[in-house]
Amino acid sequence: MKALLLIAHGSRKSASNDEIRELAAQIQIRGNRKRDKSSSKFEFELVEHAFLEMAEPTIAQGATTLITQGATDITLFPYFLAAGQHVAMDIPAQVETLRQQHPTLAFTIAPHIGAATNMWRLIDEHLQTPTQ
Amino acid sequence: MKALLLIAHGSRKSASNDEIRELAAQIQIRGNRKRDKSSSKFEFELVEHAFLEMAEPTIAQGATTLITQGATDITLFPYFLAAGQHVAMDIPAQVETLRQQHPTLAFTIAPHIGAATNMWRLIDEHLQTPTQ
Repeated sequence: MKALLLIAHGSRKSASNDEIRELAAQIQIRGNRKRDKSSSKFEFELVEHAFLEMAEPTIAQGATTLITQGATDITLFPYFLAAGQHVAMDIPAQVETLRQQHPTLAFTIAPHIGAATNMWRLIDEHLQTPTQ
Repeated sequence: MKALLLIAHGSRKSASNDEIRELAAQIQIRGNRKRDKSSSKFEFELVEHAFLEMAEPTIAQGATTLITQGATDITLFPYFLAAGQHVAMDIPAQVETLRQQHPTLAFTIAPHIGAATNMWRLIDEHLQTPTQ
């Protein structure tokens, strides 16, 4: 079973971490809806979130939640804008530990969100959205 | 003249800062192209980038570049995923300084990119894009 683990930096502000929790829930809900309509390639049956620092669930905890639910093929998605130390070193190091602990499962690291081809379009739309 | 200042965190890795420079250039190019076709509400004639920390141009330097080119109405756009300390406190403090230094100009802080309504869609598309 394919699963997605959205990995954010984590903040001391709980409201900021709540945004990540809501985003993961939204990705799952929208993904399921699209899959139901057979209009999507959204391939993740499970979606969880995790934080690299300063908040829980940690990456290990998030991965354990997915594995407990039957995930066998986990895509770890760094929700980071820049390919800095966290994306280049810290997350891969934790994923290597997961691979050693679960040698029969597949772990793939997706490119970070800052590498998204259509980021300029999201920004364009975002800046046209009236402030609430 | 309306201008956009894309404000990123800034990194010790120059490649990471280069991505921001390229993103600002892409926003300007795409925005100009859309405006030429009269198909867009893209309203910024000038687009620059700046870094909050660890890299230049600073926010003050980026704003000065825009003002020198004739900007009178500057939207400062925090390119941050989380509404943490940087978005809630540090950027507004610097913008307040700009307002005091340039009382005849208009400065507006846009919501950070993490608040974008369509983030889930960008993620959906991004995860379907084959890794290069």
